[in-house]
Amino acid sequence: MLIVKKFGGTSVADKDRIFNVAKRCIRDYEAGNDVVVVLSAMGKYTDELIAKAKDINPNPPKREMDMLFTIGEQMSVSLMAMAMAQLGVRAVSLNAFQVPMRTTSAYGNARLKKIDTERIRRELDDRKIVIVTGFQGVNKYDDYTTLGRGGSDTTAVALAAVLHADACEIYTDVDGVYTADPRLVPTARKLESISYDEMLDLAALGAGVLHSRSVELAKKYGVQLVVRSSLNESEGTIVKGVGKKMERMLISGVALDREADRISVIGIADVPGSAFKLFHTLAKNNINVDIIIQSVGRDGTKDISFTVPHNNLDEAVELLNNCKDQLGFDHIEYNCDVVKLSVVGSGMMSHPGVAAKMFECLYNENININMIATSEIRITVLIPEKDALRAMNAVHDAFGLAE
Amino acid sequence: MLIVKKFGGTSVADKDRIFNVAKRCIRDYEAGNDVVVVLSAMGKYTDELIAKAKDINPNPPKREMDMLFTIGEQMSVSLMAMAMAQLGVRAVSLNAFQVPMRTTSAYGNARLKKIDTERIRRELDDRKIVIVTGFQGVNKYDDYTTLGRGGSDTTAVALAAVLHADACEIYTDVDGVYTADPRLVPTARKLESISYDEMLDLAALGAGVLHSRSVELAKKYGVQLVVRSSLNESEGTIVKGVGKKMERMLISGVALDREADRISVIGIADVPGSAFKLFHTLAKNNINVDIIIQSVGRDGTKDISFTVPHNNLDEAVELLNNCKDQLGFDHIEYNCDVVKLSVVGSGMMSHPGVAAKMFECLYNENININMIATSEIRITVLIPEKDALRAMNAVHDAFGLAE
Repeated sequence: MLIVKKFGGTSVADKDRIFNVAKRCIRDYEAGNDVVVVLSAMGKYTDELIAKAKDINPNPPKREMDMLFTIGEQMSVSLMAMAMAQLGVRAVSLNAFQVPMRTTSAYGNARLKKIDTERIRRELDDRKIVIVTGFQGVNKYDDYTTLGRGGSDTTAVALAAVLHADACEIYTDVDGVYTADPRLVPTARKLESISYDEMLDLAALGAGVLHSRSVELAKKYGVQLVVRSSLNESEGTIVKGVGKKMERMLISGVALDREADRISVIGIADVPGSAFKLFHTLAKNNINVDIIIQSVGRDGTKDISFTVPHNNLDEAVELLNNCKDQLGFDHIEYNCDVVKLSVVGSGMMSHPGVAAKMFECLYNENININMIATSEIRITVLIPEKDALRAMNAVHDAFGLAE
Repeated sequence: MLIVKKFGGTSVADKDRIFNVAKRCIRDYEAGNDVVVVLSAMGKYTDELIAKAKDINPNPPKREMDMLFTIGEQMSVSLMAMAMAQLGVRAVSLNAFQVPMRTTSAYGNARLKKIDTERIRRELDDRKIVIVTGFQGVNKYDDYTTLGRGGSDTTAVALAAVLHADACEIYTDVDGVYTADPRLVPTARKLESISYDEMLDLAALGAGVLHSRSVELAKKYGVQLVVRSSLNESEGTIVKGVGKKMERMLISGVALDREADRISVIGIADVPGSAFKLFHTLAKNNINVDIIIQSVGRDGTKDISFTVPHNNLDEAVELLNNCKDQLGFDHIEYNCDVVKLSVVGSGMMSHPGVAAKMFECLYNENININMIATSEIRITVLIPEKDALRAMNAVHDAFGLAE
């Protein structure tokens, strides 16, 4: 078997954890498997690098930021190779230049284009454990790039795809995918398996275990993932194509996203193209917009509200104000005291009552709904931050997820 | 003009120093020059990396050690590029893969083989300051290597050679090359210029300002160096071919090396080949031997004494004891309480009285000489450590170096 194992920053945060990971990998290796390990930067090291950079230049060039970021994973992989050597096993660390791992040019948010497997194959054939830097790539200018949030997961899935791996294990600091964040919902339950699409919605909605890009990639190439803890031997959750169970759950999880802020553009001209111009301006600047609501305003204008990630709020507001004349609106309002609460489940496709049940539950809890968005397999509401926990637990239990 | 400027770890140890270096480079750039900057790792960062590695594996694989080391310079160059951007100047950082900077395979002690100048030229033509990682290279396996001690100086000199630079400036924490270490000899005087050969001997003898490998390379390719301080505007010392002054100084400097230990192999068989076997054993293990003395021992045996760097002492003694039967000696003695004191100067080639003058000076100071070694342009003595400072000052002044 060829196994790709990915460990996040907390799993390699210190010496003990590095050895813990090394031993897990060696166990698979000594059972006769080929083992490829993908690592993130240790603990909060990436945050330390950001602080170092910002201290020198509050707005550092993205190309140089990626040059700085990539040292984090290079530290992890070289120390891991040393740990494995200390345990008597041959290992080799590889960075993005050495694989090489080719990406698009976009610094800070590149996409993988092509992974050369020759070097990795050669090292595996030489019976070494191969330890690859996650998160990083090299663009056509021979410059380092990084893959953005969840980048190391994406690296692992992509490697599993090109190497035709038999398994791709994503190790994290939780046991698997839960019906809701167990730190917030005491009755949350771990799922044995979940479909790519459900996982995608959970990921997009802030469930945090896997980033949606890695799940998209896994779906595209049919890479079956296992999400499990690096700290215990628990079985984890399998992420795969649609399951074959006869009885499917109505919904598979409840997700809370505290990072969403609401922006309202008030009094925009009610003419064709105004919404296009508005969202085009944001898209050009790589600002992801979620829930969108348009309502009738006064005097032949309309109001458009939408949510953006919290760390894009200032930029989005500034961008829009800079284009005020061109977009033709009256003013902008925003609200940071809101959260997105979502229920996800492919079972709801054939059960039209899910939305109603969720709204009823929130009504019973006397929680006001700001905005609503739905897709085939999810329902998302924007609610006041102060009600977040109560709403999450109520909805989780209302759908019988606590079993 | 194309100027290569190299800054050591202390010159980029913190934010203020990074900006100080950035401004110096920008001054040259804005005067219309092409500027290539070579940087070492910040401050004591390399030592921190060694500590991290040894904590995980006391004897880490050299390949992985180099993989870890190279992040130090990559941090320096990316932060420097950010500092220059903050000051409004376009700059680009490059690591050994990006240049690329090809070396021999030897991890931890590689030698530069070939530097591709295409990328650097292109960035210079684009009017960017180019910031290159010192100390590191890439071998034929596409693995990182490091150049060993003084490696960043070597990188700078090599870049100056292949780019046909008009100047190569080595910035350090001292003002230039002195007749002796000014911290030890208060009357020491800065030299305006010094020949490659004299600098080589000073470097080899522990004067510490430049590593001998970089000086050898500069001599080979005729790269004129300037050694100067990054902390002030002092003129520094020019290192070049033989000067043209009519009146040359007898000696140009006094160097003290505290890192030398003496080993004596007592009672070795007085037969052909015994010295060869002894030093071959040490050479095979990359232990550099300096001053060697052979004396007649008892009963048809002889004693051989020599000096080794302090950090090789344990290994050397162990190696020799392991080969005791094969080498056929009685026992080994060693002494760490000794230092090497040297006078250097190409002027002494035509003045036979230099050695006598040095010995007389030490005799007047009542300092016992353990061992003596001479070359055409240097005289080295091994003396007790307790006498080191007194001897150094006495010799320095005896040769009129205080002016």
